[in-house]
Amino acid sequence: MVEATQEQLLEFLCRMGDNTLVLGHRVSEWCGHAPVLEEDIALANTALDLIGQTQMWLGLAADVEGKGRTADDLAMLRDVWDFRNVLLVEQPNGDFGQTMMRQFLFDAWHLGMLNALTKSSHEQIAAIAAKAVKEVQYHVERSGDTVIGLGDGTSESHKRMQDALNLLWPYVGEMFVSDAVDDAMVAAGIAPDLSMLRTQFDMHVKPVLGEATLTIPEGKFTHKGGKTGFQHTEHLGHMLTQMQWLQRAYPGATW
Amino acid sequence: MVEATQEQLLEFLCRMGDNTLVLGHRVSEWCGHAPVLEEDIALANTALDLIGQTQMWLGLAADVEGKGRTADDLAMLRDVWDFRNVLLVEQPNGDFGQTMMRQFLFDAWHLGMLNALTKSSHEQIAAIAAKAVKEVQYHVERSGDTVIGLGDGTSESHKRMQDALNLLWPYVGEMFVSDAVDDAMVAAGIAPDLSMLRTQFDMHVKPVLGEATLTIPEGKFTHKGGKTGFQHTEHLGHMLTQMQWLQRAYPGATW
Repeated sequence: MVEATQEQLLEFLCRMGDNTLVLGHRVSEWCGHAPVLEEDIALANTALDLIGQTQMWLGLAADVEGKGRTADDLAMLRDVWDFRNVLLVEQPNGDFGQTMMRQFLFDAWHLGMLNALTKSSHEQIAAIAAKAVKEVQYHVERSGDTVIGLGDGTSESHKRMQDALNLLWPYVGEMFVSDAVDDAMVAAGIAPDLSMLRTQFDMHVKPVLGEATLTIPEGKFTHKGGKTGFQHTEHLGHMLTQMQWLQRAYPGATW
Repeated sequence: MVEATQEQLLEFLCRMGDNTLVLGHRVSEWCGHAPVLEEDIALANTALDLIGQTQMWLGLAADVEGKGRTADDLAMLRDVWDFRNVLLVEQPNGDFGQTMMRQFLFDAWHLGMLNALTKSSHEQIAAIAAKAVKEVQYHVERSGDTVIGLGDGTSESHKRMQDALNLLWPYVGEMFVSDAVDDAMVAAGIAPDLSMLRTQFDMHVKPVLGEATLTIPEGKFTHKGGKTGFQHTEHLGHMLTQMQWLQRAYPGATW
Protein backbone atom coordinates (compact mmCIF):
# COMPACT_ATOMS: atom_id res chain seq x y z
CA MET A 1 0.00 0.00 0.00
CA VAL A 2 1.05 3.53 -0.79
CA GLU A 3 0.21 6.15 1.80
CA ALA A 4 -1.93 9.06 0.66
CA THR A 5 -0.70 12.59 1.30
CA GLN A 6 -2.40 14.81 3.83
CA GLU A 7 -3.72 17.01 0.99
CA GLN A 8 -5.26 14.05 -0.79
CA LEU A 9 -6.92 12.78 2.35
CA LEU A 10 -8.24 16.26 3.15
CA GLU A 11 -9.65 16.58 -0.36
CA PHE A 12 -11.37 13.19 -0.12
CA LEU A 13 -12.92 14.05 3.25
CA CYS A 14 -14.17 17.40 1.96
CA ARG A 15 -15.80 15.64 -0.96
CA MET A 16 -17.64 13.28 1.39
CA GLY A 17 -18.62 16.04 3.79
CA ASP A 18 -19.59 18.58 1.15
CA ASN A 19 -21.87 16.08 -0.57
CA THR A 20 -23.79 15.48 2.64
CA LEU A 21 -23.71 19.14 3.66
CA VAL A 22 -25.07 20.50 0.39
CA LEU A 23 -27.67 17.78 -0.04
CA GLY A 24 -28.62 18.06 3.62
CA HIS A 25 -29.20 21.79 3.22
CA ARG A 26 -31.17 21.32 0.03
CA VAL A 27 -33.41 18.72 1.64
CA SER A 28 -33.89 20.94 4.70
CA GLU A 29 -35.38 23.58 2.38
CA TRP A 30 -38.47 21.36 2.26
CA CYS A 31 -39.09 21.69 5.96
CA GLY A 32 -42.70 22.82 6.34
CA HIS A 33 -43.33 22.66 2.58
CA ALA A 34 -43.61 18.96 1.70
CA PRO A 35 -46.85 17.73 0.13
CA VAL A 36 -47.89 15.65 3.16
CA LEU A 37 -46.86 15.70 6.80
CA GLU A 38 -45.35 12.22 6.70
CA GLU A 39 -43.02 13.23 3.87
CA ASP A 40 -42.17 16.51 5.54
CA ILE A 41 -40.95 14.68 8.62
CA ALA A 42 -39.15 12.06 6.56
CA LEU A 43 -37.32 14.73 4.57
CA ALA A 44 -36.39 16.64 7.71
CA ASN A 45 -35.01 13.43 9.21
CA THR A 46 -33.03 12.70 6.07
CA ALA A 47 -31.61 16.22 6.17
CA LEU A 48 -30.64 15.77 9.81
CA ASP A 49 -28.91 12.47 9.07
CA LEU A 50 -26.92 14.11 6.29
CA ILE A 51 -25.95 17.11 8.40
CA GLY A 52 -24.91 14.74 11.19
CA GLN A 53 -22.69 12.85 8.75
CA THR A 54 -21.30 16.19 7.58
CA GLN A 55 -20.22 16.99 11.10
CA MET A 56 -18.24 13.75 11.21
CA TRP A 57 -16.67 14.08 7.76
CA LEU A 58 -15.77 17.75 8.04
CA GLY A 59 -14.72 17.30 11.67
CA LEU A 60 -12.20 14.69 10.54
CA ALA A 61 -11.21 16.91 7.60
CA ALA A 62 -10.50 19.76 10.00
CA ASP A 63 -8.38 17.45 12.18
CA VAL A 64 -6.44 16.25 9.15
CA GLU A 65 -5.91 19.81 7.99
CA GLY A 66 -4.52 20.69 11.42
CA LYS A 67 -4.92 24.45 11.11
CA GLY A 68 -7.31 24.88 14.01
CA ARG A 69 -10.41 25.15 11.84
CA THR A 70 -13.55 23.29 12.88
CA ALA A 71 -16.27 21.49 10.93
CA ASP A 72 -18.37 24.64 11.34
CA ASP A 73 -15.62 26.79 9.87
CA LEU A 74 -15.36 24.54 6.85
CA ALA A 75 -19.13 24.51 6.36
CA MET A 76 -19.85 28.17 6.98
CA LEU A 77 -16.76 30.11 5.98
CA ARG A 78 -15.58 28.60 2.69
CA ASP A 79 -16.72 30.21 -0.54
CA VAL A 80 -18.13 28.36 -3.51
CA TRP A 81 -14.81 27.50 -5.19
CA ASP A 82 -13.65 25.58 -2.14
CA PHE A 83 -16.64 23.26 -2.10
CA ARG A 84 -16.06 19.74 -3.36
CA ASN A 85 -19.55 18.26 -3.67
CA VAL A 86 -20.75 16.67 -6.89
CA LEU A 87 -23.01 18.88 -9.01
CA LEU A 88 -25.99 16.54 -8.54
CA VAL A 89 -26.53 17.48 -4.91
CA GLU A 90 -26.48 21.25 -5.45
CA GLN A 91 -29.25 21.14 -8.05
CA PRO A 92 -32.46 22.89 -6.93
CA ASN A 93 -35.25 20.90 -5.32
CA GLY A 94 -37.73 21.41 -8.15
CA ASP A 95 -40.95 19.60 -7.34
CA PHE A 96 -41.23 16.78 -4.82
CA GLY A 97 -40.60 14.20 -7.54
CA GLN A 98 -37.41 15.88 -8.67
CA THR A 99 -36.19 16.04 -5.07
CA MET A 100 -36.86 12.32 -4.59
CA MET A 101 -35.20 11.40 -7.87
CA ARG A 102 -32.10 13.38 -6.91
CA GLN A 103 -32.20 11.69 -3.53
CA PHE A 104 -32.48 8.20 -4.99
CA LEU A 105 -29.63 8.70 -7.47
CA PHE A 106 -27.39 10.05 -4.72
CA ASP A 107 -28.47 7.48 -2.15
CA ALA A 108 -27.68 4.60 -4.50
CA TRP A 109 -24.14 5.92 -4.98
CA HIS A 110 -23.84 6.82 -1.30
CA LEU A 111 -24.82 3.35 -0.11
CA GLY A 112 -22.19 1.64 -2.28
CA MET A 113 -19.56 4.15 -1.23
CA LEU A 114 -20.26 3.84 2.48
CA ASN A 115 -20.47 0.05 2.35
CA ALA A 116 -16.99 -0.02 0.86
CA LEU A 117 -15.69 2.59 3.30
CA THR A 118 -16.67 0.43 6.29
CA LYS A 119 -13.64 -1.65 5.24
CA SER A 120 -11.36 1.37 4.86
CA SER A 121 -7.75 1.07 6.02
CA HIS A 122 -8.33 4.44 7.74
CA GLU A 123 -9.86 3.60 11.09
CA GLN A 124 -11.83 6.81 11.61
CA ILE A 125 -13.22 6.74 8.07
CA ALA A 126 -14.34 3.14 8.59
CA ALA A 127 -16.04 4.17 11.85
CA ILE A 128 -17.89 7.10 10.27
CA ALA A 129 -18.99 4.92 7.38
CA ALA A 130 -20.24 2.21 9.73
CA LYS A 131 -22.48 4.73 11.45
CA ALA A 132 -23.65 6.47 8.29
CA VAL A 133 -24.36 3.37 6.24
CA LYS A 134 -27.23 2.38 8.52
CA GLU A 135 -28.92 5.69 7.90
CA VAL A 136 -28.32 5.62 4.18
CA GLN A 137 -29.66 2.07 3.85
CA TYR A 138 -32.92 3.51 5.06
CA HIS A 139 -32.68 6.62 2.84
CA VAL A 140 -32.32 4.57 -0.32
CA GLU A 141 -35.16 2.20 0.53
CA ARG A 142 -37.40 5.16 1.05
CA SER A 143 -36.33 7.18 -1.99
CA GLY A 144 -36.40 4.08 -4.21
CA ASP A 145 -39.92 3.23 -3.09
CA THR A 146 -41.04 6.78 -3.79
CA VAL A 147 -39.48 6.76 -7.24
CA ILE A 148 -41.38 3.55 -8.01
CA GLY A 149 -44.62 4.83 -6.52
CA LEU A 150 -44.57 8.09 -8.44
CA GLY A 151 -43.00 6.75 -11.64
CA ASP A 152 -45.55 3.95 -11.88
CA GLY A 153 -48.34 6.20 -10.60
CA THR A 154 -50.65 8.58 -12.43
CA SER A 155 -49.81 9.92 -15.87
CA GLU A 156 -48.99 13.25 -14.25
CA SER A 157 -46.66 11.77 -11.64
CA HIS A 158 -45.07 9.52 -14.26
CA LYS A 159 -44.38 12.50 -16.51
CA ARG A 160 -42.85 14.48 -13.68
CA MET A 161 -40.57 11.61 -12.66
CA GLN A 162 -39.44 11.08 -16.24
CA ASP A 163 -38.73 14.83 -16.53
CA ALA A 164 -36.74 14.63 -13.29
CA LEU A 165 -34.75 11.65 -14.54
CA ASN A 166 -34.05 13.39 -17.86
CA LEU A 167 -32.84 16.45 -15.98
CA LEU A 168 -30.71 14.68 -13.39
CA TRP A 169 -29.30 11.66 -15.18
CA PRO A 170 -26.50 13.71 -16.83
CA TYR A 171 -25.28 14.50 -13.29
CA VAL A 172 -24.88 10.82 -12.33
CA GLY A 173 -21.60 10.24 -14.17
CA GLU A 174 -19.61 12.69 -12.07
CA MET A 175 -20.02 10.49 -8.99
CA PHE A 176 -17.95 7.80 -10.72
CA VAL A 177 -15.21 9.84 -12.40
CA SER A 178 -11.84 9.14 -10.80
CA ASP A 179 -8.97 11.57 -10.53
CA ALA A 180 -5.57 11.50 -8.81
CA VAL A 181 -7.15 11.88 -5.39
CA ASP A 182 -9.39 8.86 -5.93
CA ASP A 183 -6.47 6.84 -7.28
CA ALA A 184 -4.44 7.70 -4.18
CA MET A 185 -7.33 6.63 -1.94
CA VAL A 186 -7.55 3.30 -3.74
CA ALA A 187 -3.78 2.78 -3.56
CA ALA A 188 -3.83 3.45 0.17
CA GLY A 189 -6.78 1.14 0.77
CA ILE A 190 -8.81 4.06 2.07
CA ALA A 191 -11.61 4.17 -0.48
CA PRO A 192 -12.99 1.91 -3.22
CA ASP A 193 -12.44 2.00 -6.95
CA LEU A 194 -15.23 4.18 -8.32
CA SER A 195 -15.62 2.08 -11.47
CA MET A 196 -16.51 -0.87 -9.24
CA LEU A 197 -19.13 1.27 -7.53
CA ARG A 198 -20.66 2.09 -10.90
CA THR A 199 -21.39 -1.55 -11.58
CA GLN A 200 -23.14 -1.90 -8.23
CA PHE A 201 -24.99 1.34 -8.84
CA ASP A 202 -26.34 0.21 -12.18
CA MET A 203 -27.42 -3.14 -10.72
CA HIS A 204 -29.33 -1.29 -8.03
CA VAL A 205 -30.74 1.64 -9.98
CA LYS A 206 -31.79 0.09 -13.26
CA PRO A 207 -34.32 -2.38 -11.81
CA VAL A 208 -35.86 0.36 -9.65
CA LEU A 209 -36.21 2.72 -12.61
CA GLY A 210 -37.59 -0.19 -14.64
CA GLU A 211 -40.20 -0.94 -12.00
CA ALA A 212 -40.98 2.77 -11.98
CA THR A 213 -41.64 2.46 -15.76
CA LEU A 214 -39.06 5.18 -16.39
CA THR A 215 -36.63 5.33 -19.28
CA ILE A 216 -32.97 6.18 -18.71
CA PRO A 217 -32.00 8.90 -21.19
CA GLU A 218 -29.59 7.99 -23.95
CA GLY A 219 -26.27 9.74 -24.28
CA LYS A 220 -23.06 9.58 -22.30
CA PHE A 221 -22.65 13.28 -21.53
CA THR A 222 -21.80 14.02 -17.91
CA HIS A 223 -21.74 17.38 -16.18
CA LYS A 224 -18.48 17.67 -14.22
CA GLY A 225 -16.56 20.15 -12.11
CA GLY A 226 -18.17 19.91 -8.68
CA LYS A 227 -16.02 17.37 -6.90
CA THR A 228 -12.84 18.97 -8.19
CA GLY A 229 -14.16 22.46 -7.42
CA PHE A 230 -13.33 23.47 -10.98
CA GLN A 231 -16.80 24.69 -11.84
CA HIS A 232 -19.94 24.53 -9.75
CA THR A 233 -23.35 25.42 -11.13
CA GLU A 234 -24.68 28.86 -10.24
CA HIS A 235 -27.12 27.23 -7.81
CA LEU A 236 -24.43 26.54 -5.20
CA GLY A 237 -23.54 30.20 -4.71
CA HIS A 238 -27.16 31.17 -4.17
CA MET A 239 -27.53 28.32 -1.70
CA LEU A 240 -24.46 29.41 0.26
CA THR A 241 -25.75 32.99 0.60
CA GLN A 242 -28.69 31.49 2.49
CA MET A 243 -26.82 28.77 4.36
CA GLN A 244 -23.90 30.89 5.49
CA TRP A 245 -25.78 34.12 6.16
CA LEU A 246 -25.78 33.92 9.92
CA GLN A 247 -22.09 33.10 10.35
CA ARG A 248 -21.16 35.72 7.77
CA ALA A 249 -23.27 38.47 9.34
CA TYR A 250 -22.49 37.49 12.96
CA PRO A 251 -19.05 35.88 12.92
CA GLY A 252 -18.54 33.37 15.69
CA ALA A 253 -22.19 33.37 16.73
CA THR A 254 -23.18 30.37 18.87
CA TRP A 255 -26.38 29.21 20.49
CA MET B 1 -40.22 76.36 13.54
CA VAL B 2 -39.13 73.65 15.96
CA GLU B 3 -35.82 71.99 15.25
CA ALA B 4 -35.82 68.24 14.76
CA THR B 5 -33.48 66.13 16.84
CA GLN B 6 -30.52 64.39 15.26
CA GLU B 7 -32.22 61.00 15.82
CA GLN B 8 -35.38 62.13 14.07
CA LEU B 9 -33.46 63.51 11.11
CA LEU B 10 -31.40 60.32 10.88
CA GLU B 11 -34.55 58.23 10.94
CA PHE B 12 -36.15 60.30 8.17
CA LEU B 13 -33.06 60.03 5.97
CA CYS B 14 -32.86 56.27 6.47
CA ARG B 15 -36.49 55.98 5.42
CA MET B 16 -35.80 57.89 2.21
CA GLY B 17 -32.59 55.98 1.50
CA ASP B 18 -33.92 52.56 2.41
CA ASN B 19 -36.93 52.99 0.12
CA THR B 20 -34.68 53.70 -2.85
CA LEU B 21 -32.12 51.07 -1.85
CA VAL B 22 -34.59 48.23 -1.46
CA LEU B 23 -36.63 49.13 -4.55
CA GLY B 24 -33.43 49.72 -6.52
CA HIS B 25 -32.19 46.25 -5.60
CA ARG B 26 -35.52 44.65 -6.42
CA VAL B 27 -35.65 46.33 -9.82
CA SER B 28 -32.04 45.31 -10.51
CA GLU B 29 -33.12 41.68 -10.12
CA TRP B 30 -34.74 42.06 -13.56
CA CYS B 31 -31.41 42.76 -15.24
CA GLY B 32 -31.16 40.33 -18.15
CA HIS B 33 -34.63 38.90 -17.48
CA ALA B 34 -37.12 41.50 -18.70
CA PRO B 35 -39.58 40.50 -21.45
CA VAL B 36 -38.02 42.77 -24.09
CA LEU B 37 -34.63 44.44 -24.39
CA GLU B 38 -36.04 47.97 -24.23
CA GLU B 39 -37.70 47.22 -20.89
CA ASP B 40 -34.62 45.48 -19.57
CA ILE B 41 -32.54 48.59 -20.17
CA ALA B 42 -35.25 50.88 -18.80
CA LEU B 43 -35.49 48.84 -15.60
CA ALA B 44 -31.72 48.76 -15.18
CA ASN B 45 -31.65 52.54 -15.58
CA THR B 46 -34.41 52.96 -13.04
CA ALA B 47 -32.50 50.74 -10.62
CA LEU B 48 -29.35 52.79 -11.14
CA ASP B 49 -31.22 56.04 -10.51
CA LEU B 50 -32.60 54.65 -7.28
CA ILE B 51 -29.24 53.34 -6.09
CA GLY B 52 -27.69 56.71 -6.94
CA GLN B 53 -30.33 58.44 -4.83
CA THR B 54 -29.62 55.94 -2.06
CA GLN B 55 -25.99 56.96 -2.02
CA MET B 56 -27.05 60.58 -1.44
CA TRP B 57 -29.68 59.84 1.21
CA LEU B 58 -27.63 57.33 3.16
CA GLY B 59 -24.49 59.41 2.70
CA LEU B 60 -26.25 62.30 4.38
CA ALA B 61 -27.66 59.94 7.00
CA ALA B 62 -24.15 58.74 7.80
CA ASP B 63 -22.95 62.35 8.14
CA VAL B 64 -25.84 63.18 10.44
CA GLU B 65 -25.16 60.09 12.51
CA GLY B 66 -21.53 61.18 12.89
CA LYS B 67 -20.18 57.80 13.94
CA GLY B 68 -17.82 57.33 11.02
CA ARG B 69 -20.10 54.97 9.12
CA THR B 70 -20.53 55.43 5.36
CA ALA B 71 -23.49 55.01 3.03
CA ASP B 72 -22.04 51.60 2.13
CA ASP B 73 -21.90 50.60 5.79
CA LEU B 74 -25.55 51.53 6.26
CA ALA B 75 -26.59 49.66 3.12
CA MET B 76 -24.50 46.55 3.53
CA LEU B 77 -24.01 46.00 7.25
CA ARG B 78 -27.38 46.66 8.86
CA ASP B 79 -29.68 43.73 9.51
CA VAL B 80 -33.34 43.60 8.63
CA TRP B 81 -34.66 45.23 11.81
CA ASP B 82 -32.68 48.38 11.13
CA PHE B 83 -34.19 48.93 7.71
CA ARG B 84 -36.81 51.68 7.44
CA ASN B 85 -38.29 51.19 3.95
CA VAL B 86 -42.04 50.86 3.45
CA LEU B 87 -43.26 47.29 2.94
CA LEU B 88 -44.38 48.02 -0.63
CA VAL B 89 -40.86 48.23 -2.01
CA GLU B 90 -39.62 44.97 -0.48
CA GLN B 91 -42.39 42.91 -2.08
CA PRO B 92 -41.12 40.39 -4.67
CA ASN B 93 -41.07 41.32 -8.34
CA GLY B 94 -43.72 38.81 -9.38
CA ASP B 95 -44.34 39.11 -13.11
CA PHE B 96 -43.44 42.17 -15.16
CA GLY B 97 -46.88 43.67 -14.60
CA GLN B 98 -46.61 43.33 -10.83
CA THR B 99 -43.20 44.99 -10.91
CA MET B 100 -44.54 47.90 -12.94
CA MET B 101 -47.59 48.30 -10.70
CA ARG B 102 -45.34 48.41 -7.60
CA GLN B 103 -43.16 50.92 -9.41
CA PHE B 104 -46.07 53.16 -10.37
CA LEU B 105 -47.55 53.19 -6.88
CA PHE B 106 -44.18 54.02 -5.37
CA ASP B 107 -43.24 56.54 -8.08
CA ALA B 108 -46.48 58.47 -7.60
CA TRP B 109 -45.75 58.83 -3.87
CA HIS B 110 -42.07 59.47 -4.52
CA LEU B 111 -42.73 62.30 -6.99
CA GLY B 112 -44.98 64.15 -4.56
CA MET B 113 -42.52 63.66 -1.73
CA LEU B 114 -39.51 64.85 -3.70
CA ASN B 115 -41.37 67.82 -5.14
CA ALA B 116 -42.15 68.95 -1.61
CA LEU B 117 -38.61 68.22 -0.40
CA THR B 118 -37.13 70.57 -3.01
CA LYS B 119 -38.50 73.30 -0.75
CA SER B 120 -37.11 71.73 2.43
CA SER B 121 -35.64 74.00 5.09
CA HIS B 122 -32.70 71.57 5.16
CA GLU B 123 -30.37 72.70 2.41
CA GLN B 124 -28.80 69.33 1.61
CA ILE B 125 -32.15 67.57 1.58
CA ALA B 126 -33.51 70.18 -0.83
CA ALA B 127 -30.46 69.69 -3.06
CA ILE B 128 -30.81 65.89 -3.13
CA ALA B 129 -34.51 66.20 -3.87
CA ALA B 130 -33.87 68.66 -6.71
CA LYS B 131 -31.59 66.15 -8.38
CA ALA B 132 -33.76 63.10 -7.72
CA VAL B 133 -37.08 64.65 -8.73
CA LYS B 134 -36.01 64.93 -12.37
CA GLU B 135 -35.31 61.21 -12.49
CA VAL B 136 -38.51 60.29 -10.71
CA GLN B 137 -40.62 62.49 -13.00
CA TYR B 138 -39.43 60.23 -15.78
CA HIS B 139 -39.93 57.03 -13.75
CA VAL B 140 -43.57 57.81 -13.06
CA GLU B 141 -44.36 58.76 -16.65
CA ARG B 142 -42.92 55.49 -17.79
CA SER B 143 -44.50 53.27 -15.12
CA GLY B 144 -47.87 55.03 -15.50
CA ASP B 145 -47.83 54.52 -19.28
CA THR B 146 -47.02 50.84 -18.79
CA VAL B 147 -49.81 50.41 -16.25
CA ILE B 148 -52.24 51.91 -18.76
CA GLY B 149 -50.88 49.91 -21.69
CA LEU B 150 -51.08 46.59 -19.86
CA GLY B 151 -54.25 47.32 -17.86
CA ASP B 152 -56.13 48.38 -20.98
CA GLY B 153 -54.43 45.68 -23.08
CA THR B 154 -55.34 42.06 -23.68
CA SER B 155 -57.62 40.18 -21.32
CA GLU B 156 -54.56 38.34 -19.99
CA SER B 157 -52.56 41.52 -19.34
CA HIS B 158 -55.62 43.20 -17.83
CA LYS B 159 -56.14 40.29 -15.46
CA ARG B 160 -52.52 40.32 -14.37
CA MET B 161 -52.56 44.05 -13.72
CA GLN B 162 -55.76 43.79 -11.71
CA ASP B 163 -54.20 40.94 -9.70
CA ALA B 164 -51.14 43.10 -9.11
CA LEU B 165 -53.26 46.03 -7.96
CA ASN B 166 -55.27 43.79 -5.64
CA LEU B 167 -52.04 42.45 -4.15
CA LEU B 168 -50.23 45.76 -3.78
CA TRP B 169 -52.95 48.28 -2.97
CA PRO B 170 -53.01 47.30 0.73
CA TYR B 171 -49.35 48.41 0.90
CA VAL B 172 -50.12 51.94 -0.35
CA GLY B 173 -51.46 53.30 2.92
CA GLU B 174 -48.18 52.88 4.81
CA MET B 175 -46.54 55.58 2.66
CA PHE B 176 -48.96 58.12 4.12
CA VAL B 177 -49.05 57.12 7.78
CA SER B 178 -47.43 59.77 9.97
CA ASP B 179 -45.63 59.19 13.22
CA ALA B 180 -43.63 61.35 15.60
CA VAL B 181 -40.69 61.50 13.21
CA ASP B 182 -42.88 62.78 10.38
CA ASP B 183 -44.51 65.31 12.70
CA ALA B 184 -41.10 66.58 13.73
CA MET B 185 -40.05 66.92 10.08
CA VAL B 186 -43.18 68.95 9.33
CA ALA B 187 -42.65 71.13 12.39
CA ALA B 188 -39.07 71.84 11.32
CA GLY B 189 -40.07 72.61 7.74
CA ILE B 190 -37.93 69.72 6.53
CA ALA B 191 -40.57 67.48 4.98
CA PRO B 192 -44.21 67.78 3.92
CA ASP B 193 -47.37 66.69 5.68
CA LEU B 194 -48.03 63.16 4.45
CA SER B 195 -51.80 63.64 4.44
CA MET B 196 -51.32 66.43 1.89
CA LEU B 197 -49.28 64.04 -0.23
CA ARG B 198 -52.13 61.56 -0.14
CA THR B 199 -54.48 64.01 -1.81
CA GLN B 200 -51.97 64.62 -4.61
CA PHE B 201 -51.33 60.89 -4.89
CA ASP B 202 -55.00 60.09 -5.34
CA MET B 203 -55.41 62.85 -7.92
CA HIS B 204 -52.51 61.37 -9.87
CA VAL B 205 -53.13 57.65 -9.45
CA LYS B 206 -56.88 57.34 -9.81
CA PRO B 207 -57.12 58.73 -13.37
CA VAL B 208 -54.23 56.50 -14.48
CA LEU B 209 -55.82 53.39 -12.98
CA GLY B 210 -59.13 54.47 -14.51
CA GLU B 211 -57.59 54.79 -17.94
CA ALA B 212 -56.01 51.39 -17.35
CA THR B 213 -59.57 50.05 -16.78
CA LEU B 214 -58.48 48.77 -13.35
CA THR B 215 -60.57 48.77 -10.19
CA ILE B 216 -59.10 49.92 -6.90
CA PRO B 217 -59.89 47.29 -4.27
CA GLU B 218 -62.34 48.19 -1.54
CA GLY B 219 -61.32 48.13 2.09
CA LYS B 220 -59.14 50.41 4.17
CA PHE B 221 -56.72 47.82 5.55
CA THR B 222 -53.08 48.81 5.31
CA HIS B 223 -50.02 46.66 5.94
CA LYS B 224 -47.65 48.55 8.24
CA GLY B 225 -44.38 48.13 10.06
CA GLY B 226 -41.72 48.75 7.41
CA LYS B 227 -40.97 52.44 7.82
CA THR B 228 -40.88 52.13 11.60
CA GLY B 229 -38.83 48.93 11.39
CA PHE B 230 -41.37 47.25 13.64
CA GLN B 231 -42.14 44.36 11.33
CA HIS B 232 -40.85 43.77 7.81
CA THR B 233 -42.22 41.01 5.60
CA GLU B 234 -40.09 37.88 5.31
CA HIS B 235 -39.07 38.95 1.81
CA LEU B 236 -36.68 41.63 3.05
CA GLY B 237 -34.43 39.21 4.94
CA HIS B 238 -34.10 36.93 1.93
CA MET B 239 -33.27 39.94 -0.22
CA LEU B 240 -30.58 41.10 2.19
CA THR B 241 -28.84 37.71 2.17
CA GLN B 242 -28.32 38.24 -1.55
CA MET B 243 -27.64 41.97 -1.48
CA GLN B 244 -25.22 41.95 1.43
CA TRP B 245 -23.44 38.68 0.68
CA LEU B 246 -20.23 40.13 -0.65
CA GLN B 247 -19.64 42.63 2.15
CA ARG B 248 -20.57 40.02 4.73
CA ALA B 249 -18.25 37.36 3.30
CA TYR B 250 -15.42 39.75 2.44
CA PRO B 251 -15.66 42.63 4.91
CA GLY B 252 -14.28 45.88 3.57
CA ALA B 253 -13.91 44.56 0.01
CA THR B 254 -13.57 47.28 -2.63
CA TRP B 255 -13.15 47.29 -6.41
